[in-house]
Amino acid sequence: MTPAPPSCTVEFRARYAETDQMGIIYHANYLPWCEIGRTELIRRLYRSYADVEREGVLLAVTDVALRYHASARYDDLVRVTTTLEQVRSRGASFLYEIHRVEEGGSTTRLASGRTGHIAIDRTGSPRTLPPAILEAFRNGVTE
Amino acid sequence: MTPAPPSCTVEFRARYAETDQMGIIYHANYLPWCEIGRTELIRRLYRSYADVEREGVLLAVTDVALRYHASARYDDLVRVTTTLEQVRSRGASFLYEIHRVEEGGSTTRLASGRTGHIAIDRTGSPRTLPPAILEAFRNGVTE
Amino acid sequence: MTPAPPSCTVEFRARYAETDQMGIIYHANYLPWCEIGRTELIRRLYRSYADVEREGVLLAVTDVALRYHASARYDDLVRVTTTLEQVRSRGASFLYEIHRVEEGGSTTRLASGRTGHIAIDRTGSPRTLPPAILEAFRNGVTE
Amino acid sequence: MTPAPPSCTVEFRARYAETDQMGIIYHANYLPWCEIGRTELIRRLYRSYADVEREGVLLAVTDVALRYHASARYDDLVRVTTTLEQVRSRGASFLYEIHRVEEGGSTTRLASGRTGHIAIDRTGSPRTLPPAILEAFRNGVTE
Repeated sequence: MTPAPPSCTVEFRARYAETDQMGIIYHANYLPWCEIGRTELIRRLYRSYADVEREGVLLAVTDVALRYHASARYDDLVRVTTTLEQVRSRGASFLYEIHRVEEGGSTTRLASGRTGHIAIDRTGSPRTLPPAILEAFRNGVTE
Repeated sequence: MTPAPPSCTVEFRARYAETDQMGIIYHANYLPWCEIGRTELIRRLYRSYADVEREGVLLAVTDVALRYHASARYDDLVRVTTTLEQVRSRGASFLYEIHRVEEGGSTTRLASGRTGHIAIDRTGSPRTLPPAILEAFRNGVTE
Repeated sequence: MTPAPPSCTVEFRARYAETDQMGIIYHANYLPWCEIGRTELIRRLYRSYADVEREGVLLAVTDVALRYHASARYDDLVRVTTTLEQVRSRGASFLYEIHRVEEGGSTTRLASGRTGHIAIDRTGSPRTLPPAILEAFRNGVTE
Repeated sequence: MTPAPPSCTVEFRARYAETDQMGIIYHANYLPWCEIGRTELIRRLYRSYADVEREGVLLAVTDVALRYHASARYDDLVRVTTTLEQVRSRGASFLYEIHRVEEGGSTTRLASGRTGHIAIDRTGSPRTLPPAILEAFRNGVTE
């Protein structure tokens, strides 16, 4: 039986700075939200991504895709669920589900997305992921 | 013979504010660059998008996809080529090719992407594109 | 005896998207942090600022000043303490103290600032603050 | 007779990404505009700021102050006039005047501001400005 892929959830409020004149959250601002979710998943699986970068491993973004289902608005309570889709020796990919948490606790689906990453070193050259990270991601269990 | 789809090019310099600690342009900041290209194409095909919104037609983003080929850096001269991919009565989609213009004039491909849009009114309800916009987009000839 | 002016504290982590190629948080990104603090203080004193805007009262920014004492970095736990400096019938001003919360709980002062605001309506014309807001701000007690 | 301090002007269009739900340009986004002006002034006085950083000289921001006179809007043609206020062996400060260029060529004053900077090296330690930069800034003549 295959275990469920590692996943985690973070919540925060949409910022005024993130709105645009359409009165909703500007579409590009969902990508930093995905990054917040990814940061948290990496922290739970291994260590903080800040530490990962200090070890000389950078996860550069190679491609992104986002689909918008409903509009987020200022001060919405936003929930990002991040799942490790795939990990390879030279990179990884993540899936995102972004919801608004309504008063009362029900949720509305705002967006879903995916980002692909390759491991590079400080000079920008491709490298392999250190065994410790590979193992942590592959055996990933988050509480 | 099918005419080439309408297309246009804009150039600007990458901002320091757009970099991240990897020393390159943060990946989310390519989406505002696409928007600059789209704004310019709409201006040349019809009128400024600011005018379009004043007429009560908003082109909400439904989906985005970007692939990164090389890193953009601070102060790079960036060229965005935007092409109208498709126009329908209720929306449109655009394609983007983003290059760095090197000294001497050669170019390096940085990213390519696509955005999908539906027409909505001020209340957020779907609507059809006004005939004048549809016609301008369909017969699209720029400059 | 004059009561202490109303004040509140929020904490969040600095985002990767907020860094620049100097390896620190880009200086402009402290202003959205001040806005997060201000949003929270208004929520505790009165109601959410989203509600305030829905009532037709917008607190436009007239001036900002920030002084940077130490650099914030990606994934820092940031604490913003916001204090209502002054409230007038036609506007208000806020003070900010921004700290990094170190592991162990000690703090490092990152920045301090001030923003001034005037009340405007949806058309951008100056207006007076509604009595309920004025009173809530003047009698402001936050837990 | 004291020569006028070095100064230069850049123009660009306000981006949709820079608006907020008030329908105007979000106040924090004027700081990247100041940085665009500063980048251009440094380029004309000496060399590109990208080159300056490659030489190991970083101009970290120590303080900012901005006053907003009128609202900028999406697609406005924005003109930033940057003036070198002061240069010292360990830092410099700049003044900014930001205008909207109306159709017909008249201008409306949007904001004015000032930023202070100290020179640091790659480790973040204070350092002196190289003589070549000091001289270029002090004898600064821009066309």
